[in-house]
Amino acid sequence: MSKAIVGTSTPQVTAREKVMGRAQYAGDIKLPGMLHAKVLRSPHPHARIVGIDTSAARALPGVKLVVTGHDVPARNWGPHRKEQRILACGVVRHVGEEVAAVVAVSDEVARDALDLIRVEYEPLPALLTPAAALAEGAPELHAGTRNIGHEMRIERGDVEAGFAGAAAVYEATYDMHSQYPGYLEPMASVAAQDGNGRLTLWASTQSVFLARMRLAEALDRPVSTIRVVQATTGGGFGAKIVEENNSLICAFLASRLDRPVRLVNNRLEDFQGARASVPMTVWLRMGLSADGMIVAKDVRITAECGAYSGLAGDVMHVTAMRSDNMHCLQNVRSHAVLAYTNNPPRGAFRGFGGQQMLFPLNCHLTVLAGMLGIDPIEVHKRNAIPAGATSVHGWKISSTGMVECLEMTRKAIGWDQKRAASNSAARGTVTRRRGVGIAAAMHVSGNRTLGNWDGSTILLKLNEDGRVMLQTSECDMGQGANTMLSQICAQELGIPLSHVTVMVPDTDTAPFCLGSLASRVTIIAGNAALRAAREARQKLLALAAEKLGADPEQLVIADGRISVPGQPDKSATLAEIARLHIFRHGGEGIHVRATYDAPTVMHDDNYYGNVAPSHSFAAQAVEVEVDTCTGQVTVIDSFVADDCGKAINPLAVHGQTHGATVQAIGWTLYENLHYEEGRLMNGNFADYTMPTADAVPMLRTDVVESNDPNGPYGAKGASETAILPGAAAIANAVFDAVGVRIQSLPITPEKVLAGLRALQQEEADHA
Amino acid sequence: MSKAIVGTSTPQVTAREKVMGRAQYAGDIKLPGMLHAKVLRSPHPHARIVGIDTSAARALPGVKLVVTGHDVPARNWGPHRKEQRILACGVVRHVGEEVAAVVAVSDEVARDALDLIRVEYEPLPALLTPAAALAEGAPELHAGTRNIGHEMRIERGDVEAGFAGAAAVYEATYDMHSQYPGYLEPMASVAAQDGNGRLTLWASTQSVFLARMRLAEALDRPVSTIRVVQATTGGGFGAKIVEENNSLICAFLASRLDRPVRLVNNRLEDFQGARASVPMTVWLRMGLSADGMIVAKDVRITAECGAYSGLAGDVMHVTAMRSDNMHCLQNVRSHAVLAYTNNPPRGAFRGFGGQQMLFPLNCHLTVLAGMLGIDPIEVHKRNAIPAGATSVHGWKISSTGMVECLEMTRKAIGWDQKRAASNSAARGTVTRRRGVGIAAAMHVSGNRTLGNWDGSTILLKLNEDGRVMLQTSECDMGQGANTMLSQICAQELGIPLSHVTVMVPDTDTAPFCLGSLASRVTIIAGNAALRAAREARQKLLALAAEKLGADPEQLVIADGRISVPGQPDKSATLAEIARLHIFRHGGEGIHVRATYDAPTVMHDDNYYGNVAPSHSFAAQAVEVEVDTCTGQVTVIDSFVADDCGKAINPLAVHGQTHGATVQAIGWTLYENLHYEEGRLMNGNFADYTMPTADAVPMLRTDVVESNDPNGPYGAKGASETAILPGAAAIANAVFDAVGVRIQSLPITPEKVLAGLRALQQEEADHA
Repeated sequence: MSKAIVGTSTPQVTAREKVMGRAQYAGDIKLPGMLHAKVLRSPHPHARIVGIDTSAARALPGVKLVVTGHDVPARNWGPHRKEQRILACGVVRHVGEEVAAVVAVSDEVARDALDLIRVEYEPLPALLTPAAALAEGAPELHAGTRNIGHEMRIERGDVEAGFAGAAAVYEATYDMHSQYPGYLEPMASVAAQDGNGRLTLWASTQSVFLARMRLAEALDRPVSTIRVVQATTGGGFGAKIVEENNSLICAFLASRLDRPVRLVNNRLEDFQGARASVPMTVWLRMGLSADGMIVAKDVRITAECGAYSGLAGDVMHVTAMRSDNMHCLQNVRSHAVLAYTNNPPRGAFRGFGGQQMLFPLNCHLTVLAGMLGIDPIEVHKRNAIPAGATSVHGWKISSTGMVECLEMTRKAIGWDQKRAASNSAARGTVTRRRGVGIAAAMHVSGNRTLGNWDGSTILLKLNEDGRVMLQTSECDMGQGANTMLSQICAQELGIPLSHVTVMVPDTDTAPFCLGSLASRVTIIAGNAALRAAREARQKLLALAAEKLGADPEQLVIADGRISVPGQPDKSATLAEIARLHIFRHGGEGIHVRATYDAPTVMHDDNYYGNVAPSHSFAAQAVEVEVDTCTGQVTVIDSFVADDCGKAINPLAVHGQTHGATVQAIGWTLYENLHYEEGRLMNGNFADYTMPTADAVPMLRTDVVESNDPNGPYGAKGASETAILPGAAAIANAVFDAVGVRIQSLPITPEKVLAGLRALQQEEADHA
Repeated sequence: MSKAIVGTSTPQVTAREKVMGRAQYAGDIKLPGMLHAKVLRSPHPHARIVGIDTSAARALPGVKLVVTGHDVPARNWGPHRKEQRILACGVVRHVGEEVAAVVAVSDEVARDALDLIRVEYEPLPALLTPAAALAEGAPELHAGTRNIGHEMRIERGDVEAGFAGAAAVYEATYDMHSQYPGYLEPMASVAAQDGNGRLTLWASTQSVFLARMRLAEALDRPVSTIRVVQATTGGGFGAKIVEENNSLICAFLASRLDRPVRLVNNRLEDFQGARASVPMTVWLRMGLSADGMIVAKDVRITAECGAYSGLAGDVMHVTAMRSDNMHCLQNVRSHAVLAYTNNPPRGAFRGFGGQQMLFPLNCHLTVLAGMLGIDPIEVHKRNAIPAGATSVHGWKISSTGMVECLEMTRKAIGWDQKRAASNSAARGTVTRRRGVGIAAAMHVSGNRTLGNWDGSTILLKLNEDGRVMLQTSECDMGQGANTMLSQICAQELGIPLSHVTVMVPDTDTAPFCLGSLASRVTIIAGNAALRAAREARQKLLALAAEKLGADPEQLVIADGRISVPGQPDKSATLAEIARLHIFRHGGEGIHVRATYDAPTVMHDDNYYGNVAPSHSFAAQAVEVEVDTCTGQVTVIDSFVADDCGKAINPLAVHGQTHGATVQAIGWTLYENLHYEEGRLMNGNFADYTMPTADAVPMLRTDVVESNDPNGPYGAKGASETAILPGAAAIANAVFDAVGVRIQSLPITPEKVLAGLRALQQEEADHA
């Protein structure tokens, strides 16, 4: 079989309609009689709603409906804790919380009507830091919680004995801020009820079935009365899984009015409404033996979920333990607490908590390596978990290319030469100092924690022209899922990529799927697609063999024909065989359903168990230039080696890696949600400074293909891993350049300058 | 298992949105940027197109596109003979043929633009009757055809020997006219291409897959680049299978412009564009033995397809042989010729040619019964084919309720009393004479002639709330298919009808199906639904048994729960089990695909073979009143007994029977497409007089449940059979009332008066 399609760089199958401007994002959808909604948000971080006067808004010509918390179903929803309503009822817990919604004939009228709603608030004391929230006697934001959204403790081995035997021990506290997802398309929804009372939601989403489940819960109606269709989705990065409120409000309004309603966030609304990543403070203490082996790790995490917990507890869970699985560890301890505050709720974000530990860990390892006089890459390599091993938390490492990633990165960045050069250069003699830093990371490909299933079902239908329709409800939100699935299918069936159509995820017709999260789609849905395509191929060949009087083993599929090589008379078109599958006695078109469920387990009550079928690894090295006059840090070179198992579409893998690298640079150096008294002050792209093209170097990446036995063609996830090492690589490089160790993100010029001044002071003190 | 749902009269599941005015017919669809099309039609029955000047039309503000035959794909299409283009090229062959199309910003502008198109025609001699078309030396409308669209000869047994042994022989010629389908919704389409170049057609259709196949052929593109979605369909009656041109033109325009286009026939356009039924002249000679057994039948059919043959050959095929299978015959001969003329093309229509033979046959049998002094019901009964028999054409009669239908009808109409009374009443003493007539009929349920498959595939998905989504591409066009499928599914799964949602037929997502024709949906799709529901039930019970520690045989499903009777602790909700099917190791939601292919064969070259898995039978008796002053015939009582095997939804069966009865009354007494020189003169509902409520009596029907072994719950088709006997029953009743035998439809007052005058003349001559 030709391997020409899988493994070949392929423009995305969704590209044409996007570059032509014809893709239908939710905001582009126009339905007859469609109305427009806007949402009124709380200006207070914490307040009692004393009263809402909507009469003036309702009286405005063009206004069709004004609703408040009194109108929404009296049923709390939430992915874990049931603590939210569609609109705030009685109390607001963060600035930006949805208080009322207006539906009108236009966006403009709806916006004007918002100004006419009078809400009387009685401000309550706001808890704006985890420290305040967790302080003895702090008022509870949610009754009975002591402001703790989630708490977990894990201990394995003998941590104290480990430290006792360590040759070097280092402890430090790292502060990590929240990052806005920054997708190009703000959250948008259109909802409409049909004449049978069924509700359809078209939304920008990463999971149509989780969206449907959540709608059913929040709207208090059976899932079967709801249909969710994915609109073209302009990025999700975790924020469009199940935590946004836009689609709930939109669907509620459409069902109340029984008319189509459109609700599209503008950028400010999206900054206010979208869940940014979970900020955390991590105290980390690690001990290494003299030969660089990690002998003990102790960690304390304070994470902040803001006003509602959502998925933040799951994120914290990842921070508390995932990185432990990339090394051969025995003695580890984590204690993690998720604090409610009156800041906006935080949640899922690309990397899903991984970066919040990989920043501390990689900084720590570089520091400890320095203490022991060992190259940090060497430390990583010595500790790296090998394929076939079971990690301290029970994870089975089916493949790993971490060592190869580290080696590739070392060479690519010129590690040995540059480290030697930077170490030998006299500090302070030039105003622009360069340094290199490295970090490594791992991520899951799939995750069996969403309810004891990590499967995917693909429907494959062969049309009468021999072309293929693929149906899944895993969502392509720009990452290339549809291209990957098309490639696998085309590869297996021996047809051109253009002969595969991947249908839009639609809960009515598609099989149940969990959606695009946990870097699961390539391995989970890819395996399902592989099975489906192989079964379809088998069916095709079996009937072709019967028709042609040949052995199925002899047959090849190429150029739209099935034939016996060397026997020109024994040949039929794919279309002929496809039709013959229908038009014969007992016929049935080729319509294959294939499911793959990962060979994993739910972790036990002690968080032990192999939850993912495979794991991606990455290493990143950067070279930075630090302007010692201004404190400005510039990344002047970056190389990421990504062990994605097998690059089904190298172009897409590189694209994902580039994007993740930039997002990591943004988190580390530039982006910063700025709040004053709980109020976001920079909710726009002018003031929230995501990296622009001139802020990043020409990015370099390559892949390591570790060929995972569980992956389709050996492939694993290739999207999230690359965001994980960036912050530590940069912090390590800054230290390498100027000797300043920054442990609080973002690494601002002010912090660098302060560090430099402290160093100068120290040197002066020593002089 | 409770039998409460199947067999219980049930309002249609599609009723709510229809009575609320919210069903989306194709004409209701509004897409952003949608344009409106209109079609210019030929005013000549036959002409050469010398030139078309579209410049003025194109210059009209608001006009976006004007196309003619030069612009359409140079590829002929047709269900059998490839003889049509999307727009006429070079020559027009009937009045109303599509010559040009305009797309504009509104219907009004498009209509105005039509007036600006100048077509120069060179009129050609028009062949307006089959006699003219088949005359020696007549010019050929399609080269090489001798104006014969189809011809068939069948002969079995020894017809001449049969006649030689007959005690009574009768021959006569019957003329039957064409009937407009008269659905409430004229043909309508909306088409649009998406950003990937795929074309979607929303149309009023009986078969989305046949529509897609035809579009692909006419537009010369692969089926996979086309998606056909059924819009709510307001009746089809055969005319919306594959013969309408509206959807082809609409789709062509949308693909040319790459913008959404709407093309909706108004009633006149629909009269001009829709295929009405095939007019035929049938010469019939039959011989009966002294005891009333049919010993010979000889028939010659001249059918007229008009300008293009479409499905008219298949219709004629039915006329030529189907009715032979309802009796125990041995000696039959048919010769049938389909003539091209310059009248509008004719095609599929409810009954599909059955009525064109059942009118002659039933009239003949009453005449011959009279000649032998036997009650015509008795003649039918004596000749009726029994269950288990194989007919003269190789049809296997799996069930028949014809004798019961006849007996039920006899009683219901008061046959014996009224026959005695009318026979004893002196003719000519009163001006309003009453008479009764009877006729019997058979029809197929399914038909394996569309390519050696008469199957249907149903997809059944159980949602996480324990409710069901059914997917099929058999089309509900008002007849109640969705209700029937929902009933079967709800019955088998023990859930309320409201917990079943039947999805809209969509070629992208639904399995290949042939669609709603040949009364096949109840038996074919019904069986597939039954299989799917039973498989789903089995899966549910198996897992429930595992979970509850019970034997699957013990379990019952009721009120949304699966439980062991008498053991209250052994119980789980359907929703729980549905979710458990997903969320477990190796899980996969319940997603069943089931196919049923009828146990039938394609007929051989000699038209012999069992093409249908079962057959419906019906008998109808009417009482008429004939006004001897005006000749007006009024049906004052009608009773139809319908052997539909099993009435899954008695309400729907009665509805179908009522509708068919009215349509038969219309054909027999009122409706009449009036042409002058090939031009339709009464293309509107004021002048084309379909029966209104005051033209029909309070209709009476009942069902005979013959319990077909091949049918789901014993059910067979229940829609077309009831249209078949009406004309003969009325003609026989008219004869019974006034002694006038009308053999040319419609039975107009003029014909009755002429017959009465001839009778008077005859009496006078005898006096």
